[in-house]
Order: sequence, then structure tokens, then C-alpha cells
Amino acid sequence: MPSKHHEATSPVPNASKGHRRLSDIDTPALVLDRTRLDRNIAAMQAQVQRLGVRLRPHLKTAKSADIARRVVGEGGAITVSTLREAEYFAAQGFKDIFYAVAIVPQKLARVARLMAAGVRVLLAVDHPAAATALAAAGRAHGVVFDALLEVDSGESRSGVQADSTQVEAVAQALDGGGARLLGVFTHGGHSYAGRSPEAHAAVAEQERIAVTTAAGRLRAQGRQIDIVSLGSTPTVRHARGLEGVTEVRAGVYMLGDLFQAGIGGTDSHSDIAVSVLTTVVGNHPERGQIVVDAGSLALSKDISTRALGAEGDCGFGLVVDADSGLPIEGLYVHVAYQEHGVIRSRTTLDHARFPIGSQVRILPNHACLTSAAYDRYHVVAGPGAPVEAVWPRVNGW
Amino acid sequence: MPSKHHEATSPVPNASKGHRRLSDIDTPALVLDRTRLDRNIAAMQAQVQRLGVRLRPHLKTAKSADIARRVVGEGGAITVSTLREAEYFAAQGFKDIFYAVAIVPQKLARVARLMAAGVRVLLAVDHPAAATALAAAGRAHGVVFDALLEVDSGESRSGVQADSTQVEAVAQALDGGGARLLGVFTHGGHSYAGRSPEAHAAVAEQERIAVTTAAGRLRAQGRQIDIVSLGSTPTVRHARGLEGVTEVRAGVYMLGDLFQAGIGGTDSHSDIAVSVLTTVVGNHPERGQIVVDAGSLALSKDISTRALGAEGDCGFGLVVDADSGLPIEGLYVHVAYQEHGVIRSRTTLDHARFPIGSQVRILPNHACLTSAAYDRYHVVAGPGAPVEAVWPRVNGW
Repeated sequence: MPSKHHEATSPVPNASKGHRRLSDIDTPALVLDRTRLDRNIAAMQAQVQRLGVRLRPHLKTAKSADIARRVVGEGGAITVSTLREAEYFAAQGFKDIFYAVAIVPQKLARVARLMAAGVRVLLAVDHPAAATALAAAGRAHGVVFDALLEVDSGESRSGVQADSTQVEAVAQALDGGGARLLGVFTHGGHSYAGRSPEAHAAVAEQERIAVTTAAGRLRAQGRQIDIVSLGSTPTVRHARGLEGVTEVRAGVYMLGDLFQAGIGGTDSHSDIAVSVLTTVVGNHPERGQIVVDAGSLALSKDISTRALGAEGDCGFGLVVDADSGLPIEGLYVHVAYQEHGVIRSRTTLDHARFPIGSQVRILPNHACLTSAAYDRYHVVAGPGAPVEAVWPRVNGW
Repeated sequence: MPSKHHEATSPVPNASKGHRRLSDIDTPALVLDRTRLDRNIAAMQAQVQRLGVRLRPHLKTAKSADIARRVVGEGGAITVSTLREAEYFAAQGFKDIFYAVAIVPQKLARVARLMAAGVRVLLAVDHPAAATALAAAGRAHGVVFDALLEVDSGESRSGVQADSTQVEAVAQALDGGGARLLGVFTHGGHSYAGRSPEAHAAVAEQERIAVTTAAGRLRAQGRQIDIVSLGSTPTVRHARGLEGVTEVRAGVYMLGDLFQAGIGGTDSHSDIAVSVLTTVVGNHPERGQIVVDAGSLALSKDISTRALGAEGDCGFGLVVDADSGLPIEGLYVHVAYQEHGVIRSRTTLDHARFPIGSQVRILPNHACLTSAAYDRYHVVAGPGAPVEAVWPRVNGW
């Protein structure tokens, strides 16, 4: 794992291009600032060491083996959100993978193939019917599927209530061969509604209570519960203590985005490691706007920062200098058409600074959504640096 | 081009799969109802014949050569929104391609390669500086780039004002070799704010006046203007007459979506040819919701139907039966997390109908955005039919 001290000179694997400048890249394109990435990784690593828990990073945002290796090293334990991610990371040497979306029988053939290739795949269940089906499928495939029980800690999306008999009901449904229960997990996604370290810490404590309560009920039945997992970027970052928890999941912190910076899930805009490089294709002083070739497909239609109020609303993204990555005061994406982004200024737009053919970068509201439009990262060490590597991403299902 | 009368039995090219059922497809997946597609294509064909104009369909939504052939036959004239689309369609035999986003010098090497391969590429310009750069690049490449002047007809996104001297300024900047002006075009995207046939017809007339005004000014200078182009799905569908116009562009009508149905750009929800097949992964009567494996990456974060008011708001999509494609009264996607869609009902949710592992389909708010998450269509002839073909899509830039 790279430390903060040698990151600027560490060798970069998979550099498949020479030292092109950003200005030579076809736009729109996804740019990754490696210095910011490594700083974000190091900060989270320090936090989980402080908390005394293992980090099983969620790769649903990064979707990149090159990034995963920087977090957990070769073959470390990871979390994914799709089976395609699981298959991609398995092929890249990661052999301990938690697929954190509730499993259904149709997907088990792909899981069984991964297991046959020597991969441990942890599966999510939150309903007795799903657990019964999982165990039956395991017996039919002649394998034993590893399961984690999902517990709701307040998000009200998935998971059983930790203090309900559903906990035992799911566990019991996994008995009898074909499956085994290894642990419990929760995702306090309602932390995204918080706006302060205290609020995130409070949700982290809700997560902790939920999983330790469920684990306690199961252990009281004599069951062995090895994995007690929780997490989201805001709650892991701000948790005060995680007694009884064995591992945590967080993902978007690696790249960062305007929404996470706005809610305190990450520190600030200057931590955002990912941005969209785009070219000015129109300049219209009479309308007070410039037009770039990054529209809603290049940026996504995510407007999550609107929930931050007038002060925090970033439209469809904030504009930064193409070379330095530093903010251009007041500039934001006002409208996102399919292939046109309309940029306006909250102050005064200096039209002469953005001739047709010039470039800017755009910080995303939501790194997971924006990055998903791209099959690769163009990696730069920092301001003004050339493209030192191209790292592939895995999209789709 | 298929007619409405033989479409149900017409041979389907590129069928790369056997006759799988939809229930055998890994989810989430994009489903295309060929009967609806062909009906939409036929309806637009009838409209442009009535109007006496040529249709140069916009493939930015469909992004599929299989679909393009059903609209214009082998090698017909088309419109695209990215250079990657242009390259893909050129490789598929389409040799007359309008790239309808303002061109910048960096993209001209790719354009020149297409031209060298025998493709006519029409390029968009809306600024004297861009026109000057285009002509200079043509001289440098030793080619003559074909240009269309973009005129604004009220959307205020791109284009010069039709009654301004900018029209002549752009034309003049193209003179002197390296480029030539073939015509003018506009896109009345502000038709999306209309809610009635009359409103769309009025925007169509604004488009017509804008392009014929600009064409008239240029012809008054002795210039030959062969292409006078306008369009959007709502305006082409509802235009009353297009005197002076030579060709029109429309695209989303092929697939249709909830927003277009809501504004009258298309007829109704039963014209929507594209949907997302998804599997129920959670069923929570205590929360009044089911959870499916189609979240914001599978559906997009487009919430355009919110602009239609409480009656028209479809959340992140409407739920239809997986086999029949017919509506399930009241069901909609209430929240879209990255890989989880939370479905609720405006009436009563019959939880027993949606056991874990069962499937539904989701009609998209915005076909362009939702479809972009997928690299292929699973084509079915209609309700209950097996997958008769898999048609690739071209995404990215």
C-alpha cells in the first residue's frame, strides 16, 4: 500500500500510454488525480487503524483493480456491487469478495463458477425465503454458499430489524446444508442525510448497535459469527468507536465528490480525485454561457448537491482549471443536455478565458454515477502533470 | 424499411442468441419491443411523408445500426451526437453522417479519417472563430470539411441568431478553402417545455422560421444552401407544415419514454419500446416496498417526469409486467440507489405477487439516459415472446 511519502514517485502499473498531455486526450474523458487518490486512501487507512477494524473497501465507485491494489494490496478482501465486478476482480487476483446486494437464485450459477475458481464469495441475504432458496441452490450445485445476514440500521432500504425474530428466521433457513452464515452486515446509507461529524457519528453508532445486536442474538443460539460489518464513507470516517465490529466498508472516499464534500463524508473539494475533462464547443457572451462537450451522459443527471441548499448546490458539477484542477470561482454546469453542458457563473463569466477548443475539468456531484460513463481513468500525478497511466474500469452487470 | 404490415414476421438480422426467454437473461438488462419500435418508426415515416421532407434520423438515442437500418435502410443518411457513433455507423455502412454537436479543431483528425474512408461528414458550426479554425484545419489536412451553420430557434443553447449578421460572419469565415457551407440547421429543444400539440407545432414553426430566415440571408449573398434542417421529436411529430425545409431530425421517438409520452412527443406509454428487465431482490411488506436490482446505474438519475406535476411524475420509472410489458397499476420506482431500486405503489402493493427472484420491467423516464447504461438490446417481438436477437449499442465517445 503506498504511503503518503513515496506516492509521487511510486511506479505506476499498467501504464499503457506514453506521457501524453491532458490536452491530447479526446473529450469528454475521466481524469484521476493520483496524489489526491493516495491521500484519500491513506486518510481512511489511518482512520480504520484508529478504530481497530479491518477495511474491506467497496469498489462500486472505483471499479478498478489498479485502485483496489492501492487500498488493499494484491488480492486483499474487497466489497463489490455487481457480479461483473466480482468476476473482474477475481480475474485480477482478488479472492475474498463480498457481493453486498441481496442474492437471488438466478445469480448463483455465476457465483458457483467463481467459487470453483477458488474465490470466496460472501453473499447478502435479508429474507427467510431468500435464505431457503440459497441453501437449496447450494445443495443442488453441490457447494456451500457463504452468507451474511443484512440488518437494517435505519436506512429502511434492505435488511431485517436487528431486534426481531427475523434474525433467527433467516439464520435457521440457511441451516441444513448448501449454505452457512458467516456474519452480519448493515449499510447506514441514511448517513447521507447528515450534515455534521456528530450526525455521521450517530449513524455509525446506529450501525454498530444494529450489527452487534443481531450478532449477539445469533451467538446466543450458539452460532459462530465471525464477520460483523458496517459502513458508508461518512460513518466510517466519523465513527467514534466500533466495539464488536470486525470490518467496515467504504468506497466513495477514494475518489470523493461534491456531495460527500458537502455533507462532510470527505474533507473538501480539494480531495476530489476524479473529474471530467471537457472541451469548450460554444462561447456565447450574449447568453452569459459557454457550452462544453460534457453533457448528461458524461456527467450523469445526478443533482444530489441540490439537497445541500443554495450554498451547496453545484448544478451538474463545478468547473476547475484543466491543468491545475483548481477551482474557477463561480463556474458551474447549469444545464446538462445529452452531449452539451451549459456552463454559467455565479459571479461574472470571463468569456475570453474560454475560447472554443480550450479545456476545463468538471468535478462531479456523485463520483459513482459520473465515473460509470467511462471505461478508463486517465491518471495524472497532480497539477500540470502528463497522463502517466490509463487504468481500466469495469462497468455493467 | 419494414412496413407496418410485415414487421411481425420480418427476419431479424444479427440474431446472435437462440430463443432464450426473458427470464433467462441476467438482470438488469435492456429489453426492446420490436413491434413497438417498428410502429414508432412507421408513424414517423408517415409524418415526414405528409410534411414532404426527408428524415435524417438522430441515432443518439438508439445508438444501434440494427435500428438505424429499420429507419433508413442500408447506408441511409443519419445524425449522430458523438464521433464514436459516427465511426461505428460508418463501419456499419452508413456514409452520410451529420455530427450535430459544434465541432472543435481537436476532433478533426478523426473526422478526416472518416472522410478518407469515403464518408460524408456534416459538421456543426455556430461561431466565426470555430468556422475560421475549421477552414484552416481543412487546408492543413488537405481536405474540405462540410459545414452546417447552427441557428438558435429559441432554446438558447447553441446557434447564432437567424436575423443577425453572425449568419454571414460564420459563412464568410468558412470561405477561402478548407471548408464549405452546405446548409443551416436548428434544434428546437425548448419544445420539451411544451405540453400540447399546439405548443409543439408553435416551436416547429419557430424552428422553420429560424432556418429559412438564415438560409434566405445566405442565398441573398449568392450562396447555395442545399440543406435546411430542423427537428426534435415533438416538433417533427406536430409540425403543421415545413415549407423551405429539406430535412428533419428526430430520434427519441423510436424508443419513446415516459417524458415524451407525458409531453405528447409520443402517443402514450404503450408506445415505449424500451424497458429495463429487473429481478426482485427484496420484499418488505413492513415498509410497503419491494427492492429490485435496477438502481440509478441501471435506470439513470433522470427525473424529468417530475416536471409533469404530481399526475405525471413517474419517480425513476414505472413498473410493467415482465412478460406482457403492460402496466402494473400504481407501481413506480420511488428511490434509486446505485444498485437498488425501491418500488412502491400509489395504491396498494400486492407483495405476494413479487416474490424474491421474480421479475418486472421498468419503463424509463428518459430513453437516451437509461439505454446508455447498456451495451446491447435484448429484442422481443412483443408480449410473452422469447428473445429473438441481441443488438449491440455504441456508447462512449
